Amino acid sequence: MEYRFARRMGCLPPSFLRELFRVSSQPGVISFAGGLPGSEHIDVEGLARASRLVMEEDGRSALQYSTTDGYLPLREYIADRYRRRLGIPARAEEIQIVNGSQQCLDLIAKILVDPGDPVGMERPGYLGAIEAFSLYEPVIHTVPLTDSGPDLASFSDLLARQPLRFFYGIPNSQNPSGRTYAGEYRKAIAELLEGTGTIFYEDDAFGELFFDGKPRLPVKRLLPEQGIMSGSFSKIVAPGMRIGWMYAPEPMLARFNAAKQASDLHSNFFCQVVLHRYLATHDLDAHVRGVSRIYGEHCRLMCDLLDDLMPPSLTHTRPEGGMFLLCTLPGGISSMKVFSEGVKEGVAVLPGAPFYVDGGGDDTIRLNFSNANIEAIKEGVARLARVISRLS
Amino acid sequence: MEYRFARRMGCLPPSFLRELFRVSSQPGVISFAGGLPGSEHIDVEGLARASRLVMEEDGRSALQYSTTDGYLPLREYIADRYRRRLGIPARAEEIQIVNGSQQCLDLIAKILVDPGDPVGMERPGYLGAIEAFSLYEPVIHTVPLTDSGPDLASFSDLLARQPLRFFYGIPNSQNPSGRTYAGEYRKAIAELLEGTGTIFYEDDAFGELFFDGKPRLPVKRLLPEQGIMSGSFSKIVAPGMRIGWMYAPEPMLARFNAAKQASDLHSNFFCQVVLHRYLATHDLDAHVRGVSRIYGEHCRLMCDLLDDLMPPSLTHTRPEGGMFLLCTLPGGISSMKVFSEGVKEGVAVLPGAPFYVDGGGDDTIRLNFSNANIEAIKEGVARLARVISRLS
Repeated sequence: MEYRFARRMGCLPPSFLRELFRVSSQPGVISFAGGLPGSEHIDVEGLARASRLVMEEDGRSALQYSTTDGYLPLREYIADRYRRRLGIPARAEEIQIVNGSQQCLDLIAKILVDPGDPVGMERPGYLGAIEAFSLYEPVIHTVPLTDSGPDLASFSDLLARQPLRFFYGIPNSQNPSGRTYAGEYRKAIAELLEGTGTIFYEDDAFGELFFDGKPRLPVKRLLPEQGIMSGSFSKIVAPGMRIGWMYAPEPMLARFNAAKQASDLHSNFFCQVVLHRYLATHDLDAHVRGVSRIYGEHCRLMCDLLDDLMPPSLTHTRPEGGMFLLCTLPGGISSMKVFSEGVKEGVAVLPGAPFYVDGGGDDTIRLNFSNANIEAIKEGVARLARVISRLS
Repeated sequence: MEYRFARRMGCLPPSFLRELFRVSSQPGVISFAGGLPGSEHIDVEGLARASRLVMEEDGRSALQYSTTDGYLPLREYIADRYRRRLGIPARAEEIQIVNGSQQCLDLIAKILVDPGDPVGMERPGYLGAIEAFSLYEPVIHTVPLTDSGPDLASFSDLLARQPLRFFYGIPNSQNPSGRTYAGEYRKAIAELLEGTGTIFYEDDAFGELFFDGKPRLPVKRLLPEQGIMSGSFSKIVAPGMRIGWMYAPEPMLARFNAAKQASDLHSNFFCQVVLHRYLATHDLDAHVRGVSRIYGEHCRLMCDLLDDLMPPSLTHTRPEGGMFLLCTLPGGISSMKVFSEGVKEGVAVLPGAPFYVDGGGDDTIRLNFSNANIEAIKEGVARLARVISRLS
């Protein structure tokens, strides 16, 4: 039987990534293609203990249905952390628990975007956002992302042409580029947006992972009513629990909550209680400092090796945090070719084109440095250098 | 600041249920309003043990990111159970894990429904489905649900007018009515649908909870390529884990999977592994038989009390399984009035109107019998009888 699908399904970019990931997970292949935090940093013992205690003390209610907004003590923990770390006057009433921050991308587009509505994002932009937004059929406008943030002239031009339903950005250690907005760019963006109808959607999946351990100024602090911010425990505690959150003004969160309820009633409640129990008895700051320091070592090593082993015409970003960096290949080399030749040589990279929603980017590759150890990084970059030198 | 929301948000039915649930959870109120399985039937000890073993043996990978389709051994367990219990040749490749079967409602509408597309459902119909579908702006057509299933003449008329994107039904112990399709209605429906473009979406949240322990013929068996079927562990193991599934032909499941990936990457992986570990070492059949027997006792008691204590002009359904029954009130009594007077008397019911997407139903109330013990059922129905007699 032939099935007929909704028009929106035709808007989803073709997903060749699944095939890439399958190929890149062959034995013997060192993969810089994925987006996993380092498994060795998951505190399995601490989470096992929290899980045991929840089962003993609170199991019956933690395993029952719960409310859509999420476990109140966990929402209070998140709000308190915003107040303490970032100086934002967040309240639990402004926090909604979701299945990892990916679900925020879906639900925000669901509540804000009619087909044909204009939304903005960085170029290159996060692929998961492109996929989530595309299913609501917006017109996506991009602003080139420079080393200091979105190009301000383009940003200003875009806003002058029309108000956007929202502009989506990752100011801290962006995916895929690893770039962080400079402080003055954050202020300029807030000024340009202030008083327009455009929401600033600040995806902060990586804000805790600065190698220097210092938080950066959130745009949300400059645009309290116009800014919304998503976060996740995936990169700082454990991804497999799928627990993230949206932080937004209450009138917007009420609609977000209604959409969440229609989507899946509520997020896994047992893991919300376990996570809160874990956080209440562990020093997340210390844990995150340790992880960030190690990611920083990995990143510096990868940058140094790229500088030493690659032709000088290969350029790359120099992340201050996060899990990724982006390389621009020497003229004429296709990232798809680097991928296929790389796998033969035993190293996998992620071709950058899918991050460029309006085309281009075939000369870029994303490298992940959080889920490979020192030895793998040394050997993997050496293999990659051989591939690139052959293709140059 | 005034926020502007997408047009679809205006299609969401007004949610007064939250307020009702808040009121009905006051201390001293016996609630038949909710939809919770009995907490005492959750095997906390068994799940605690499974959780401990997963943490010990497999914690690091169970807490990491995973694939969108879900944990393969769990999908194999589900497919095997379909083969064994229902005689359907299901394969793991046709199963996608989701966050409770509510997420199936969202994702199916997402992949199949453009604004204005016709979809069909029972009248009364499941409120969670009405909410999920409404956000995709379909035209919802209803078919009256008789004691034996959807009225066949109306069903046939509806299909003759136009093919539907899908018809959504709950053949086993429907929510809110508690009704079960008769065998010949299942065959008639399959015959009417066969060869049309209309998908039959069979929500089987309650199929394991027949009081006689016997499965009923799934429509999916009669319409292999045209039928899709959702299921859930919420009512038979534990709701708080939010683990359900969609069972659909592979070409449809591929699109469903793409939509799931864009929505939230994958469902809580840790709980998928824990649940599988639990199921592999526990006899789910025996557990479900025990739960169903107790729900059956609760249901018969409630029906007997309604027959004894209510005016003869109050009628009610006689469920063969599930968690709910539906009462039709004596002429002129409003269910909202029964709700507000009931709370004063210390008993909460769910007004039926929200289950009637095209209006009406104000003379119906839904009663839940799975989450109240024998004493509470006796006392609660007695209180309700006083309210109704006062309002008659």
